[in-house]
Amino acid sequence: MTTEKIPDIIIGRLPIYLRALQRLSDQGIQTTSSQDLGEVVGISAAQIRKDISQFGEFGKQGTGYSIAYLIEKLKDILKMDRVWEVIIVGMGDIGHALAHYNGFANRGFHVSMVFDNDPKKVGKTVGDFRVLDTASMIEKIKQHKIKVAVLTVPATSAQEAADLLVKAGIKAILNYAPISINVPEDVKVQYVDPVTHLQRMTYYL
Amino acid sequence: MTTEKIPDIIIGRLPIYLRALQRLSDQGIQTTSSQDLGEVVGISAAQIRKDISQFGEFGKQGTGYSIAYLIEKLKDILKMDRVWEVIIVGMGDIGHALAHYNGFANRGFHVSMVFDNDPKKVGKTVGDFRVLDTASMIEKIKQHKIKVAVLTVPATSAQEAADLLVKAGIKAILNYAPISINVPEDVKVQYVDPVTHLQRMTYYL
Repeated sequence: MTTEKIPDIIIGRLPIYLRALQRLSDQGIQTTSSQDLGEVVGISAAQIRKDISQFGEFGKQGTGYSIAYLIEKLKDILKMDRVWEVIIVGMGDIGHALAHYNGFANRGFHVSMVFDNDPKKVGKTVGDFRVLDTASMIEKIKQHKIKVAVLTVPATSAQEAADLLVKAGIKAILNYAPISINVPEDVKVQYVDPVTHLQRMTYYL
Repeated sequence: MTTEKIPDIIIGRLPIYLRALQRLSDQGIQTTSSQDLGEVVGISAAQIRKDISQFGEFGKQGTGYSIAYLIEKLKDILKMDRVWEVIIVGMGDIGHALAHYNGFANRGFHVSMVFDNDPKKVGKTVGDFRVLDTASMIEKIKQHKIKVAVLTVPATSAQEAADLLVKAGIKAILNYAPISINVPEDVKVQYVDPVTHLQRMTYYL
């Protein structure tokens, strides 16, 4: 099985399939078809078959996909066969919400540290975490070999914080700050900005 | 100018351009090129030229784009030439964070009401809002002719809440619940799920 050169748009759909399959599995369902899965995720059956076939032959004509097997394969492809340590940078409202979020643990991620540069926040407790000083961030990231960060600082601080993360060896940044950040080519960035998501929809209204 | 049949992937990039252009404008910059804008947003100059040309002829060879003019046109295309009233459904951690978020107002959206179905939360104050009972939601949405909702309820309640929103006439849902929801074809959904965003990046690590 080769996982090279799969278009990014397909990679983007695989976590959606995985999430839906895990939910079906939680409900005790053991097999599914591209039609059924398509109805759950709102993607056409043909698209699902095409996406999944990129990675090998998973289903049998007429019997559908084994959910357990497909989950295992998707986890393998998405490197979810391990737990990724994650840090959160910025303990504002969104940082707080994510520090309290209990949906990471069973889906392949574990928040190991949270940071802020505000002396009023450093040392305080947020959920299960003691807030660490951003000044120690590079050292701590390197020490724990962390590769994944969630950035929840204000837009005005986002590039500076991203530069520190890159310097420390972070390779994937989930950026909640409403600003595009510049990083080297080998660092991946995903954006969460409620306004751009909303604007993408109002076009159609 | 026709805005029909523009691929969704292009529509998805326009808010990113708009956000970057507004930032440049805030910095007092008046013109930009597809190269400069591309460096800001991390998208190739050729792609930017191609995307923007879908909507008409905006730049002049050699002089670049007028930022003010391009902002105006993008706002027009994305229907940001008005303010959209938005409701937030679910006053958990993320709902709280969004109710306090001050980044909607200057980018075309205004949160007008927030809802929860928990009697312990209904009637309480969150930021500038009094939490309203979900039981009154359909009536209030219809009364105020609201078309846009942010859904921040748990996964287990998301479909039920989405059904209510659709029934009330909502046409765009920004869904923070980590589950795919089924809605009629004329209702748009965008998803924010930190885990699927992270999984999309770990593939490349």
